[in-house]
Amino acid sequence: MNMTRLIEARLIAVGDELLNGRTLDANSHEIEQRLVRRGVTVGGVTVVPDRAAAIAAALDATPASCLVVMTGGLGPTPDDLTAEAVAAWAEVPLREEEAIAAILRARCEARGRPYGPNMVKQGMLPSGLAALPNPEGSAPAMVGDLRGRTLVLLPGVPSEMRVLWPLVDAWLDESGRLGPARPVLLRRTTRLSEPVLDRLTAPLLREFPGCTWSWWLTRWGVDAQALAPAGADAMPGGLAARLDEVLGDRVWAREFVDLPAVVLSALRGAGMTVAAAESCTGGLLGAALTDVPGASDAYRGGIVAYADDVKRDLLDVPEALLQDHGAVSGECARAMAAGCRARCRADFALSVTGVAGPGGGSEAKPVGTVWIGLASAAGTFAGRTRFLAHRARNRELAVAVALDALRRHLADGGDPFANAEVDGWS
Amino acid sequence: MNMTRLIEARLIAVGDELLNGRTLDANSHEIEQRLVRRGVTVGGVTVVPDRAAAIAAALDATPASCLVVMTGGLGPTPDDLTAEAVAAWAEVPLREEEAIAAILRARCEARGRPYGPNMVKQGMLPSGLAALPNPEGSAPAMVGDLRGRTLVLLPGVPSEMRVLWPLVDAWLDESGRLGPARPVLLRRTTRLSEPVLDRLTAPLLREFPGCTWSWWLTRWGVDAQALAPAGADAMPGGLAARLDEVLGDRVWAREFVDLPAVVLSALRGAGMTVAAAESCTGGLLGAALTDVPGASDAYRGGIVAYADDVKRDLLDVPEALLQDHGAVSGECARAMAAGCRARCRADFALSVTGVAGPGGGSEAKPVGTVWIGLASAAGTFAGRTRFLAHRARNRELAVAVALDALRRHLADGGDPFANAEVDGWS
Repeated sequence: MNMTRLIEARLIAVGDELLNGRTLDANSHEIEQRLVRRGVTVGGVTVVPDRAAAIAAALDATPASCLVVMTGGLGPTPDDLTAEAVAAWAEVPLREEEAIAAILRARCEARGRPYGPNMVKQGMLPSGLAALPNPEGSAPAMVGDLRGRTLVLLPGVPSEMRVLWPLVDAWLDESGRLGPARPVLLRRTTRLSEPVLDRLTAPLLREFPGCTWSWWLTRWGVDAQALAPAGADAMPGGLAARLDEVLGDRVWAREFVDLPAVVLSALRGAGMTVAAAESCTGGLLGAALTDVPGASDAYRGGIVAYADDVKRDLLDVPEALLQDHGAVSGECARAMAAGCRARCRADFALSVTGVAGPGGGSEAKPVGTVWIGLASAAGTFAGRTRFLAHRARNRELAVAVALDALRRHLADGGDPFANAEVDGWS
Repeated sequence: MNMTRLIEARLIAVGDELLNGRTLDANSHEIEQRLVRRGVTVGGVTVVPDRAAAIAAALDATPASCLVVMTGGLGPTPDDLTAEAVAAWAEVPLREEEAIAAILRARCEARGRPYGPNMVKQGMLPSGLAALPNPEGSAPAMVGDLRGRTLVLLPGVPSEMRVLWPLVDAWLDESGRLGPARPVLLRRTTRLSEPVLDRLTAPLLREFPGCTWSWWLTRWGVDAQALAPAGADAMPGGLAARLDEVLGDRVWAREFVDLPAVVLSALRGAGMTVAAAESCTGGLLGAALTDVPGASDAYRGGIVAYADDVKRDLLDVPEALLQDHGAVSGECARAMAAGCRARCRADFALSVTGVAGPGGGSEAKPVGTVWIGLASAAGTFAGRTRFLAHRARNRELAVAVALDALRRHLADGGDPFANAEVDGWS
């Protein structure tokens, strides 16, 4: 097919829940990142309620010949009316897609549920659009051209949007609608705040003009990304090396993989296992590791020692140590890690003990003070960090710093807390 | 003053960084929450680039007589052009606000910086708008009426938006622009899928016409919400009772509080404590409980027993039991809970053991099969659930079912798994 290449996109997010303060529209942000990588500029995002007139008005406002990506309103309930509204706007009928209907019928059968009107509805497409089956949920993606625009309709559930995107991307590619992907360089980092990243990369912005830079906060720290200059078929020579030079060992991935997966994969490669002893993170470190399918190969388990007597009874932290140094101390972090390693019979154990906030801080141990410990056959290590964010973010960052400590220890066998500046990070 | 009351709002977020995947527009979400509480409906959000034409088009698309809240583009750099674009759209001149200019001059003086054109610019307002000084940064908020709309211009830096909002809110109040909030009824539930909620509430939609219903998935299940008919100063009589009747004991909150907070508060009220033994959730249950500030009053800690020998060694699950019934069994869930309760010396212990997926399923124990256990002074209980979602969601729902079991046990002391249908939930 010889389509006009898409260079501009508009996003339309549909859903009352996106307007009444219940749900944050994070889909649009993720889709922007994916489109920018494909050289498509997003000219605007509109969030509209579950009303056909509002959907039609948003579609009317999109320029001709652009890519329109819509999320939400493809589910089974009466207020899910994106497909219907798009059909009305384009003045085409809704038609049943037999392949999707068969999948939906099988889904219902497997669940022992009736294949009722709300399910039938999810297999109805505006005529002119094709369906891409949803590997995770019932609502398919819908793609095709209507009224001069290329339309992509995606479910609003973020995990379903994410799992469907590669299929949409492949369809855009096959149909010749996208130019070659713009070469991209990604670095996923931890122990680095946005302002510091800003400062570190400032010279590179001057050295490599024409590149498009972006960075964004993640659960683990900050991702930095550079796109090659428009039209270039490769990244400028030397950029990758310069970027690695300024970011140093804070980089833990060069592709979209998460930090726990990186750590588990390194452990698996070494045939070794880890356990976790957690106080202020309360289980979040174990939860992050077991988010990864197949974690059982390398993760054994752990002890959440929230109360101090649990640290003593289940992690063998000496009572005297708790009395002398307190639970938020390097001594305690080391003892927790060592106790956990022995109790769980793992090759490595990580520990986290700190003041996540908002309460519990003191002058000597202000909110955000977190000690991370690591026990291995090589010894026990501990490092102090001071986060400046709120409770949830402080806990998240503590998990990231702990995992990153193990990652670096696995790489060089050294003390991961030597020269690892993380103070004042948020 | 006797203004027409504002009942509808449109949000316009301005900034290239909001469209290229660099920055997530979280401001709009926060502003929605603030407006909804004041009874104002947000009819749409538009994100536009730093271009006067795009800003004007977004303003043109807002209905007359509504409140328009704009964020971003009020800073000192050349691409900050919101005030200028609004003045051009309204066909009014920009004027210097002397009070703001004085503040900006003093700010520059205190920092030893010149009061240059970029600072002067931030004191220039579209004629017809008033300035609210920014306690945190240089750009003031701007408020007033232009072309039939009530305009509020706020800086895009989230912390500045937040610190300025109460001033905006006070201005809206003083000028008589906001009415009393629309009455609302909220029910937060678990063990209930959207289609089932749909079916249960269908008769109520007919019985109470004029109410606005919405429901949305949460981490814990589904929330259901009804707004009183427009203009009504109370919910229709009988609606709350009917809603509670159809939803039954699946309701765990009637306001915006999270399930772990509800459970911790009930424990605190009873002067009792809980611990958690986790296998497939890997720490997520402990993490959910300790998300709540002050959890240490009622949460003691727990054991993540991912490997079976950890279940044996740290939770005292008999080896023979594991051999005979397997780790994913009611027997194992009960033994884990009992072992955890004893080891952590807690009044209650919850346990979770199952197959989260995507791998590890069998015909007898398919993916999504999860046993939840509860040990208390009254005995040990266990219930089987079968989730149909993906790994992350199956784990989340297992945490919700476990917490909800303890909530109901705290209320009546009974077996929380008797008559608790959760099969086929996703």
